[in-house]
Amino acid sequence: MNTYGQHFRITTFGESHGPAIGVIIDGCPAGVEFDELLIRRELDRRKPGQSRITTQRQEEEGFKVLSGVFEGKTTGTPIAIVIENQDQRSKDYTHIKDSFRPSHADYTYDVKYGIRDYRGGGRSSARETAARVTAGAVAKMLLHRSGITVQAFVSQVGDLRAPHFSTLDLTKTEENIVRCPHPETAEKMISLIDQVRLDQDTIGGVVTGVIKNLPAGLGEPVFDKFHAELGKAMLGINAVKGFEYGSGFEGVQQRGSLHNDEFVKDGDRIRTKTNHSGGVQGGITNGEEVYFNVAFKPVATIMQDQQSIDKEGNAVTVSGKGRHDPCVVPRAVPIVEAMAALVAADFLLRARLSRV
Amino acid sequence: MNTYGQHFRITTFGESHGPAIGVIIDGCPAGVEFDELLIRRELDRRKPGQSRITTQRQEEEGFKVLSGVFEGKTTGTPIAIVIENQDQRSKDYTHIKDSFRPSHADYTYDVKYGIRDYRGGGRSSARETAARVTAGAVAKMLLHRSGITVQAFVSQVGDLRAPHFSTLDLTKTEENIVRCPHPETAEKMISLIDQVRLDQDTIGGVVTGVIKNLPAGLGEPVFDKFHAELGKAMLGINAVKGFEYGSGFEGVQQRGSLHNDEFVKDGDRIRTKTNHSGGVQGGITNGEEVYFNVAFKPVATIMQDQQSIDKEGNAVTVSGKGRHDPCVVPRAVPIVEAMAALVAADFLLRARLSRV
Amino acid sequence: MNTYGQHFRITTFGESHGPAIGVIIDGCPAGVEFDELLIRRELDRRKPGQSRITTQRQEEEGFKVLSGVFEGKTTGTPIAIVIENQDQRSKDYTHIKDSFRPSHADYTYDVKYGIRDYRGGGRSSARETAARVTAGAVAKMLLHRSGITVQAFVSQVGDLRAPHFSTLDLTKTEENIVRCPHPETAEKMISLIDQVRLDQDTIGGVVTGVIKNLPAGLGEPVFDKFHAELGKAMLGINAVKGFEYGSGFEGVQQRGSLHNDEFVKDGDRIRTKTNHSGGVQGGITNGEEVYFNVAFKPVATIMQDQQSIDKEGNAVTVSGKGRHDPCVVPRAVPIVEAMAALVAADFLLRARLSRV
Amino acid sequence: MNTYGQHFRITTFGESHGPAIGVIIDGCPAGVEFDELLIRRELDRRKPGQSRITTQRQEEEGFKVLSGVFEGKTTGTPIAIVIENQDQRSKDYTHIKDSFRPSHADYTYDVKYGIRDYRGGGRSSARETAARVTAGAVAKMLLHRSGITVQAFVSQVGDLRAPHFSTLDLTKTEENIVRCPHPETAEKMISLIDQVRLDQDTIGGVVTGVIKNLPAGLGEPVFDKFHAELGKAMLGINAVKGFEYGSGFEGVQQRGSLHNDEFVKDGDRIRTKTNHSGGVQGGITNGEEVYFNVAFKPVATIMQDQQSIDKEGNAVTVSGKGRHDPCVVPRAVPIVEAMAALVAADFLLRARLSRV
Repeated sequence: MNTYGQHFRITTFGESHGPAIGVIIDGCPAGVEFDELLIRRELDRRKPGQSRITTQRQEEEGFKVLSGVFEGKTTGTPIAIVIENQDQRSKDYTHIKDSFRPSHADYTYDVKYGIRDYRGGGRSSARETAARVTAGAVAKMLLHRSGITVQAFVSQVGDLRAPHFSTLDLTKTEENIVRCPHPETAEKMISLIDQVRLDQDTIGGVVTGVIKNLPAGLGEPVFDKFHAELGKAMLGINAVKGFEYGSGFEGVQQRGSLHNDEFVKDGDRIRTKTNHSGGVQGGITNGEEVYFNVAFKPVATIMQDQQSIDKEGNAVTVSGKGRHDPCVVPRAVPIVEAMAALVAADFLLRARLSRV
Repeated sequence: MNTYGQHFRITTFGESHGPAIGVIIDGCPAGVEFDELLIRRELDRRKPGQSRITTQRQEEEGFKVLSGVFEGKTTGTPIAIVIENQDQRSKDYTHIKDSFRPSHADYTYDVKYGIRDYRGGGRSSARETAARVTAGAVAKMLLHRSGITVQAFVSQVGDLRAPHFSTLDLTKTEENIVRCPHPETAEKMISLIDQVRLDQDTIGGVVTGVIKNLPAGLGEPVFDKFHAELGKAMLGINAVKGFEYGSGFEGVQQRGSLHNDEFVKDGDRIRTKTNHSGGVQGGITNGEEVYFNVAFKPVATIMQDQQSIDKEGNAVTVSGKGRHDPCVVPRAVPIVEAMAALVAADFLLRARLSRV
Repeated sequence: MNTYGQHFRITTFGESHGPAIGVIIDGCPAGVEFDELLIRRELDRRKPGQSRITTQRQEEEGFKVLSGVFEGKTTGTPIAIVIENQDQRSKDYTHIKDSFRPSHADYTYDVKYGIRDYRGGGRSSARETAARVTAGAVAKMLLHRSGITVQAFVSQVGDLRAPHFSTLDLTKTEENIVRCPHPETAEKMISLIDQVRLDQDTIGGVVTGVIKNLPAGLGEPVFDKFHAELGKAMLGINAVKGFEYGSGFEGVQQRGSLHNDEFVKDGDRIRTKTNHSGGVQGGITNGEEVYFNVAFKPVATIMQDQQSIDKEGNAVTVSGKGRHDPCVVPRAVPIVEAMAALVAADFLLRARLSRV
Repeated sequence: MNTYGQHFRITTFGESHGPAIGVIIDGCPAGVEFDELLIRRELDRRKPGQSRITTQRQEEEGFKVLSGVFEGKTTGTPIAIVIENQDQRSKDYTHIKDSFRPSHADYTYDVKYGIRDYRGGGRSSARETAARVTAGAVAKMLLHRSGITVQAFVSQVGDLRAPHFSTLDLTKTEENIVRCPHPETAEKMISLIDQVRLDQDTIGGVVTGVIKNLPAGLGEPVFDKFHAELGKAMLGINAVKGFEYGSGFEGVQQRGSLHNDEFVKDGDRIRTKTNHSGGVQGGITNGEEVYFNVAFKPVATIMQDQQSIDKEGNAVTVSGKGRHDPCVVPRAVPIVEAMAALVAADFLLRARLSRV
């Protein structure tokens, strides 16, 4: 279905070429100061046309809060936010109406539903993530009350990798258009994306997320482990192929004697010397930083001709048209943050239930 | 909470040192032929003491079906299965009662609940996975009716990697104790684990899963993508640090022109030439094989002394005791299969709802 | 939360004096022919000002379908419908801002949320039911494909009761303004309501619902019995104080030998001679008509002065202002139908999961 | 499905003639003092054979707590409790195997599942309620910490009614075998049930429930109103045909000016002068007593021959056999209490989420 979260719960709707998309946020506690500017800012980070390395489509994200906020505060009732689609004009979609674009959802939608809004990808359009970014901004409003911050940045494009996040100054993320806080690597990444665009091709990348100041005790021991929900949230973003947290796939090569995080006393707090655990032990946060990597495949829409078939099984040539992102990760950064914020907000509420 | 799945739904219970653990399977359709031997076989693949490279603890997994099956078939009502704990004798747990074992859940449980069953890890004990394997066997019974198979194997231990799964004969998985279907690599893996055990240490690994013959059309477009649920299910297994499917983390280095899977007609079926998508496009299965990797960290319990602190913040030495797995992946294979089977069964039912 | 239903699931939002209210319908299967006129018609049956015995407020219910419908059919994706609030002008609400109106939700909202949109009842406004009626119309579109009809009518106002529903011609319900298909009783009811309005008072009533042509086999055996969900749905409507189905409260006086419904063969069908069961046995429909009564208390807003207290505990006089319904049941008829349609649609889908 | 509750959540399993029935209680907070004697006491109130007006079957309710409790307290992990079925001997069920007993669930189960455990009613057996009573006892343990009490009693048998509950001393409920705290009415009720049994017939009744000391602020404004969940919980009990709370069906005859509950200051508390609202306003508790009536139809199993048909549509005579309750309400009292306690516990937890 189209709902995410148990307690801080969002339901999104909308296709890219209908009148509007939007979200209902249900379960946000009453009394949160509502900051519309934060929504605006986050939507701007996601919007197309923001720089030369993203799609050049221009979208003005006009959103409207329809309910759930009164005199500047949340009221505990559902917060509905609608984002109008600007670009509803009737383009010519004949070229994709009956064809299955390679590595798109055209074919699978047809099998599942038997009917599909073929204009611009319908429900599987990346446009849907604007609703998530909006909801994520509201989640951040709740988290900020507790001093929790959620940050993400581009750590890899193609085979270009930034240094380990612990050596980086994340306040620099927004200082360049690729959103990598390591200026030297950022420059190389931008050059690579420029080249990929000239080649009328696309390339993948990795976004790294960091959640700071989470209290210990969030998460459930068995199925709903903190990192399991976080992983689901990330894997639910379009184009994501992998998720790892803490030591991740690298960690499998280590020995336990090295990998284990030793507990130490730090003033009044209990902390760990190292953080291979990635801030989660037994599915529950331990108060250390939660960090994770999210792998994005190269965007499926390329500006080249590709072979495919249509609904009747006839061979067709699918031609790249329009304006698309050569690399999705710079614009994926606010989406990763939004989904992480939603997970953290949900568990923050859930933690109120664990003890008498 | 302790429930997994929307339609084919399991709820597990039990600590390692209470009277029993178990599971209720709710939502299994009526009319599935019930095969107790399959449960027995799967539990045997998971049980401790099965070979020299696993823990030497001997556990006889006696299980009992309490409900939901009548005259050899499921009735559509909840199937409750209880597995008795054999090893309830009152050992001396003084050494861990108040100490926080490094990279275990002791500390986070204490923060979350304020009380914890410290005997053998309580609810976070790996023993809980026996309930999952049991439920997974029932899910397999449902899947087998549709010809769907779920297989997993060890593809990496430490830095030793088996060749790509598409070149392997998965029927050989059970022919060696490490459950790697590539005999040469299996031999090396076993030697490595032997060495690690002699070093009183542990090591991580990767389990690869493959689901075959899934129909196209399973999965939801937005949050509940097939692979997102699969990822959550895997990340909910103890010691898992990462999940990737299809081209995964490697795929980010590719160009879209190479990564895209071209649609082709294969007799009556629509197929893809390559399968970088890993059998899922836009969150929905396309009928190709679903394959994925699951990263397991080295087991936290090692046979060496480690520094830590206790509840009062005093420095303590935690000594390794008992019999534990030097490497968890051989026994994790049936657990990965079980969770994958549960996800597939759930989506198989859910797909009945997508059209009029 | 603000979500209802498991498979055919709605989430509503909106306060009476915000910009809009609305609903997301999730889980409606793809391929249902979408009939906007039906939504219009149902909203007209619910709208204020439709006759002299309802409130004289005039509301034009302009609704807009934002998503989930393409080329006249549902697509399986969420259907979002927004209904603009016409009457947002800033009235003077000083008289109720800090006072607790007797038998309204003012006090309980304040305790629960600590903040409340005091304009026009906020989220507890009867206006919220417009969203339900809209969603119920979509549910009816699905039900009509299977020949299932949902009808309701006014069977009691004050102490005036219509004859048993089985003797009535329900097609006559809309022929009078009180929506009672028994013309003689209808006339008396209208006179009573006229008198009550002149007395600046309000009065309660009963709405009877009938669902015809439901297939046998809908409902769950234990908690989610067909009639239990139906009861919850009805009790979730504002001002409802009771629900009964089949023989109801009267039935407790009967002997089992009289109350039991004898099975008989009717052509190819298995039917019951009598229908004290109200179409449900063991929580599951048996193919007979489901019928039920819903009790509505007198509307709390009366045009008289009442004593109450304010937030500080000071004695205050609450004066009746504005235009309100002297009796809620005529306008409650489409709401009862809507909720019943939602329940039936949900179970109709759920029934697809019970067998292999 | 077989799960009830959002936060304090139970899942039950088991048929009357399998090895056992039972329940998993998930979401009970850690730290509740666990009182096994309370479970025992509640099960004794429900058990068959407890008096001459109940069925004479003797069942010893041996239950076993398998998990979730450690050193006398709940741990926050799932509490699994199994109740063994004593009476599993292979009786002769030929007489009901293929016949549809009037007003039983035989026919509807067959339609829904296509297979059914015909021994003793299978899953629809009243025996399932032992699992609910067990879970309800645990809910009561949580409620008692907050001083909340849940009481029920028999207020009507056939046409014999006890006086209004507000005039009764509920501590007298257990002083007679019919569980009516009004001794004169109790005596008449017992005589009536005696007569009904002699007539080899059954009769219906009403159970009234009262929840005291609930804090204000429990319940949700729209679908999940406190009384809507309470109604669903009651209607989910076997044989229930109706639910009303506060002024109920009687209240519809009143005028609003009389029905409205005036707010008054009572020391530090805000209270209402009257309580027609039944302790709930706008779906949310206001701190007054919640009271409600639950209508039970006459038990379907009677000791007389009845006409019916079998699976093939042949006319058959169904003969009453065994020992059954002539009137179900005395034993329904603890079941009503259990379900009410579950609802209250669930909302008590949920209320922790409404504010920042």
